[in-house]
Amino acid sequence: MVRLEDMDWQTYEKKVSDGSAVIMLPIGAIEQHGPHMSMNPDVLIPQAISEGVAKAFDNVLVAHPISYGYKSQVKSGGGNFFPGTTCISGKTLIDTIKDVVVAYARHGNRKFVLVNGHYENSMFVVEGIELALEKLRIDDIHAEVILLSYWDFVTDDTIKTVFPDGFTGWDVEHGGVLETSLMLYLHPELVDMEKVIDHQPATFPPYDVFPADQSWVPESGTLSSAKKATVEYGELLFQVCIEGIATGIKERFK
Amino acid sequence: MVRLEDMDWQTYEKKVSDGSAVIMLPIGAIEQHGPHMSMNPDVLIPQAISEGVAKAFDNVLVAHPISYGYKSQVKSGGGNFFPGTTCISGKTLIDTIKDVVVAYARHGNRKFVLVNGHYENSMFVVEGIELALEKLRIDDIHAEVILLSYWDFVTDDTIKTVFPDGFTGWDVEHGGVLETSLMLYLHPELVDMEKVIDHQPATFPPYDVFPADQSWVPESGTLSSAKKATVEYGELLFQVCIEGIATGIKERFK
Amino acid sequence: MVRLEDMDWQTYEKKVSDGSAVIMLPIGAIEQHGPHMSMNPDVLIPQAISEGVAKAFDNVLVAHPISYGYKSQVKSGGGNFFPGTTCISGKTLIDTIKDVVVAYARHGNRKFVLVNGHYENSMFVVEGIELALEKLRIDDIHAEVILLSYWDFVTDDTIKTVFPDGFTGWDVEHGGVLETSLMLYLHPELVDMEKVIDHQPATFPPYDVFPADQSWVPESGTLSSAKKATVEYGELLFQVCIEGIATGIKERFK
Amino acid sequence: MVRLEDMDWQTYEKKVSDGSAVIMLPIGAIEQHGPHMSMNPDVLIPQAISEGVAKAFDNVLVAHPISYGYKSQVKSGGGNFFPGTTCISGKTLIDTIKDVVVAYARHGNRKFVLVNGHYENSMFVVEGIELALEKLRIDDIHAEVILLSYWDFVTDDTIKTVFPDGFTGWDVEHGGVLETSLMLYLHPELVDMEKVIDHQPATFPPYDVFPADQSWVPESGTLSSAKKATVEYGELLFQVCIEGIATGIKERFK
Amino acid sequence: MVRLEDMDWQTYEKKVSDGSAVIMLPIGAIEQHGPHMSMNPDVLIPQAISEGVAKAFDNVLVAHPISYGYKSQVKSGGGNFFPGTTCISGKTLIDTIKDVVVAYARHGNRKFVLVNGHYENSMFVVEGIELALEKLRIDDIHAEVILLSYWDFVTDDTIKTVFPDGFTGWDVEHGGVLETSLMLYLHPELVDMEKVIDHQPATFPPYDVFPADQSWVPESGTLSSAKKATVEYGELLFQVCIEGIATGIKERFK
Amino acid sequence: MVRLEDMDWQTYEKKVSDGSAVIMLPIGAIEQHGPHMSMNPDVLIPQAISEGVAKAFDNVLVAHPISYGYKSQVKSGGGNFFPGTTCISGKTLIDTIKDVVVAYARHGNRKFVLVNGHYENSMFVVEGIELALEKLRIDDIHAEVILLSYWDFVTDDTIKTVFPDGFTGWDVEHGGVLETSLMLYLHPELVDMEKVIDHQPATFPPYDVFPADQSWVPESGTLSSAKKATVEYGELLFQVCIEGIATGIKERFK
Repeated sequence: MVRLEDMDWQTYEKKVSDGSAVIMLPIGAIEQHGPHMSMNPDVLIPQAISEGVAKAFDNVLVAHPISYGYKSQVKSGGGNFFPGTTCISGKTLIDTIKDVVVAYARHGNRKFVLVNGHYENSMFVVEGIELALEKLRIDDIHAEVILLSYWDFVTDDTIKTVFPDGFTGWDVEHGGVLETSLMLYLHPELVDMEKVIDHQPATFPPYDVFPADQSWVPESGTLSSAKKATVEYGELLFQVCIEGIATGIKERFK
Repeated sequence: MVRLEDMDWQTYEKKVSDGSAVIMLPIGAIEQHGPHMSMNPDVLIPQAISEGVAKAFDNVLVAHPISYGYKSQVKSGGGNFFPGTTCISGKTLIDTIKDVVVAYARHGNRKFVLVNGHYENSMFVVEGIELALEKLRIDDIHAEVILLSYWDFVTDDTIKTVFPDGFTGWDVEHGGVLETSLMLYLHPELVDMEKVIDHQPATFPPYDVFPADQSWVPESGTLSSAKKATVEYGELLFQVCIEGIATGIKERFK
Repeated sequence: MVRLEDMDWQTYEKKVSDGSAVIMLPIGAIEQHGPHMSMNPDVLIPQAISEGVAKAFDNVLVAHPISYGYKSQVKSGGGNFFPGTTCISGKTLIDTIKDVVVAYARHGNRKFVLVNGHYENSMFVVEGIELALEKLRIDDIHAEVILLSYWDFVTDDTIKTVFPDGFTGWDVEHGGVLETSLMLYLHPELVDMEKVIDHQPATFPPYDVFPADQSWVPESGTLSSAKKATVEYGELLFQVCIEGIATGIKERFK
Repeated sequence: MVRLEDMDWQTYEKKVSDGSAVIMLPIGAIEQHGPHMSMNPDVLIPQAISEGVAKAFDNVLVAHPISYGYKSQVKSGGGNFFPGTTCISGKTLIDTIKDVVVAYARHGNRKFVLVNGHYENSMFVVEGIELALEKLRIDDIHAEVILLSYWDFVTDDTIKTVFPDGFTGWDVEHGGVLETSLMLYLHPELVDMEKVIDHQPATFPPYDVFPADQSWVPESGTLSSAKKATVEYGELLFQVCIEGIATGIKERFK
Repeated sequence: MVRLEDMDWQTYEKKVSDGSAVIMLPIGAIEQHGPHMSMNPDVLIPQAISEGVAKAFDNVLVAHPISYGYKSQVKSGGGNFFPGTTCISGKTLIDTIKDVVVAYARHGNRKFVLVNGHYENSMFVVEGIELALEKLRIDDIHAEVILLSYWDFVTDDTIKTVFPDGFTGWDVEHGGVLETSLMLYLHPELVDMEKVIDHQPATFPPYDVFPADQSWVPESGTLSSAKKATVEYGELLFQVCIEGIATGIKERFK
Repeated sequence: MVRLEDMDWQTYEKKVSDGSAVIMLPIGAIEQHGPHMSMNPDVLIPQAISEGVAKAFDNVLVAHPISYGYKSQVKSGGGNFFPGTTCISGKTLIDTIKDVVVAYARHGNRKFVLVNGHYENSMFVVEGIELALEKLRIDDIHAEVILLSYWDFVTDDTIKTVFPDGFTGWDVEHGGVLETSLMLYLHPELVDMEKVIDHQPATFPPYDVFPADQSWVPESGTLSSAKKATVEYGELLFQVCIEGIATGIKERFK
């Protein structure tokens, strides 16, 4: 059992009260990912990866995810105007991260790994962590937090395997081969490969516009096509992320 | 399929764009519920009830829950000092409710049912709804929101059945017969009846103190004993809530 | 002299600088209470009760009340749409409580009793207290706060006396026999019994709706009729609250 | 009857629903005013002046005051370190003003006079008004607000009468002849002229320091001596303020 | 070199790490100052004065200014409705001051002089300083801050020289002889004396109105005429401010 | 004259009142950039580029920069612990962007280009823009905003020229060849090439840690060496950015 929410409090207390446990906190978004996939990959993938990592350790627990994320941007998530893309504002995300990290630290935890699954969240999570650490200092609590986005652990070798015809870049991977392969492996019931749209990767000018220019985004909502996604790629990506993150945890938290 | 997050965005769009759909939003907490139960009943129960209600309709969808809730209070949830009880502050909850309701309304939705599973959330959810409706008016959007706590749909007859020896009152039902029976019915793997502590219902003075006086709370963390919880009671409670809520939806949203 | 605001600062300083004094802080609302009564009972009643309690002690002082309260809700106060009902938002109330408690603590006070007179305030006051205690910890100040609503000190015996035909419940007591009797006793010039409307207690569905459904509320704005209110009941209620609160203070603060 | 809080809601509604009424809102502070006077002159004086003005009109009402004000500054109020001086932060005052003005405007009111009694409040009240007007525009409500500090209506002639030996300046009038005379006239029971300290007016460098340098302030807490305060001066000051403010109201609101 | 931003970090570190340096922080506004002058005098003047002061010391450094200030008010800056007047809200200014002071303190600095050039900023800067000092206490950092507005150092003798026909008062000095003379001396390229409008000083009623009554303000946007401004007056004013502030720094920081 | 702050308000008004002007707003940071360079390149470079772009148009104006930016991160700016790195929090930056954009829009401007010079600012600027556009809608104002970071306009050809031995990547360009060359071209007096440290580009693990691990950063504070920076590269980079941005403006604003 790695999900801490599934434990009773006394079991949980035994594991965390001495500060040696590592709490993994998945952070995602509810956001469209094309006509072929559900709207929760940014939650489900970091949650599954967190659980995969936790299983490799004795004292790593997975917290309930923070599921609603920052506003989808055109060039990374298709934009905040798609039906189903359901986002919270920057200050709300900052405060949520702050409050949740503080709460887990007050149980005795001192080691955290925040596992981000939605690009747009990153800087607000950074600020939430900063505010949490500052607030904890009032009570003389000093915690250490690792922040990561799971895709940063995909190695160059894996990229070459998954994109044999050349990698079109992380920036257009929204709803593409990477996320779709992972979902095929983790939650095949939430993917319908027959609905994948085949289209060229999106290209964008070197700036953003507000309000969003909806014509910049492929009608599918995906920024590159998931046509070549496979369950095997998904497994490969999953394993490489888990290994990389586990190594990072060992480096920092011994 | 009633969970909107499991749909692809185009399927979802077809259901919601004309404003006739009803969005149910479960709101819970991660909070200890005694040594015999997991720490997520306040999320899982309203989510299950929402899904149960949705199945009785064509156009009712269940949104991803808001899972972290307001600080547990001694007299309703045992208090915010138990390991595992993981709460957010009042302003963060207000802002989260506001942002999420606004986001779903911008998809075209105009009818909402917020299903609360954690007593302490109520007034902050009220304020979040008020702020959401105010913000939506900037864009001339007018939505209608029902707010309910599922236990308010438990009928007197049901109470008599579930508590044949007399009802000790809602205020001490934390981790008691009601929640435990529901969890036994919905998620038996998260309950261990052998660990239930048998104790008298907690009694409290007619005031609160801050910082919390931890000696007021039974060591178990439950405010009354779940000894007499059964899966049958759970089913009964589940059905009566679903029926009551479904009736309410028909009344308000025709 | 029990109102601290009526003292000069040197007199006040003598009483509070060693931290042994108890500061009572009434918290109310400006809210309609029917056609027969002024709009300030939620301020005047807790203020009078606080002063009544203070007179029974040597070292209990009454602070200037926090007079504007959280938005009136249909099922407890008639709703926020009545002319005269003048409410502040949740975050403003939280911040006010926080700032005022912190300020009195910086004078040396360590013992507080917050006396609430408006149901809707409660959870925002809780959060304000939490934030105040946290802020005070920055300067290593540790205070203890009692939070109470005066009606929670009305005993069952008193209820039987005041409602000889049966109690219709706290939830519909807005502008009814309880508050009107207290005002008849404390401020008879602000009550006109000839204007009391006789109507059945309001009944409500087990949920709330936003925006408020104004048809749910009796046209009077009261949720039950004050027809049977008397000055004698008012005195009885006043005494029982004072005794109960005084007992609580002795319990917690010796 | 000019205090709107003392009216029942139907009486109030008749007066305000057409938008022709003028709402006066006193804004004060709880702040030490020397060893000879209570700590509430900044509330009581603007409240009395508001009521005095209202009596000269048919359709001017006085709202419940906003009683807690911004942090006392050394050079205008003696500083925020005196026991009894009980102040709120800038954002809390901004939000309170905003919420309260919005609430009264939603009753139909369109004409406001905010009567300030505490110098340090001024700019935060300005911002509160700005935010209120902006928020009201969401609902297409357009109100007009006069903001004044009562002492700005004291004429040069009055100054000459009250300070026959020369005026030492508004900046050191804290707890001095002006406020004390007004309190002698309005609330003689809250002044004890025997406790007035006779000292030279305070002098300050042309800058402020933080944290406050307590040695800058006379030990009395007053910035000039109230030795020469009289009830006659108080009446004169009261009348001149009332006349000036009444004239202003006629100018702007006809 | 007195601008700290122009140093490399190692040079800066050498000067500040022992806490003996004094950091001057100019705070201004972008605001119209009549048809004859640029819109940045409230930034440029305090910046130049700060640099002038710093040159007289070994260990006084000038920080990058905070350039956007609080909303221009009719009676002090002409009002917030003039094209070019570009203001931020009160809370934003409070937070900016707080963050910037905290950041410089974390480099080791303990002595600050905040040099205000825009009247409307003052109270928000006060609150920003208060919040900064409170936040620094979390990390046991204790700093001392001087807050000043440069015009408070203009002596009576200087006033007599610059206004030989009598001083019309600080309140109408917006865009008048004082600021224009200083700009003629410091930045003559940003002043065009041929465009100065000759008009009587503005007169105002003893109250403010919101929304602003634009008819109160001379069409020029200046509150008194700069006709008699000269570069010689500018130099005189500059010197007297520098001397006064330097003296203040020596008094407080030895 | 392209700096709008250097204009008098009437000149400015003529240019902007019909909404056809484009306002460029540079957004930077005060942050260490190694021992060889001043701490303001993130302000000065976007300001110079904005002015360079504006000169190519009739109706493009440059606003006063927003100079303090979000907290420096280890992997992009060396980290927030270097003396001289002076950063504001996320919410403050969000609010500043919001307020400033709203203020310029209220002058009549409808076209904005926000020119970012500090990587860490980006997402907070996005949120500020979102909030500004939402607030403007209250008054039925609809503006269009381009957001860009100047380095995104550096073409591949330019990269090949400037980094003939191979580009080590944008992520380690802090204080390296790119910024140093631009500063050598724009502000040679703020660069001392003799102080450049020659070191290998920094390498980082694929995650961040909080509190920052200072051992990750080269002692110089630069993430790659500026040894090969030249004024010629600076001119080339400057020109390519100006051309690219000018093209973007023509595309979006015709």
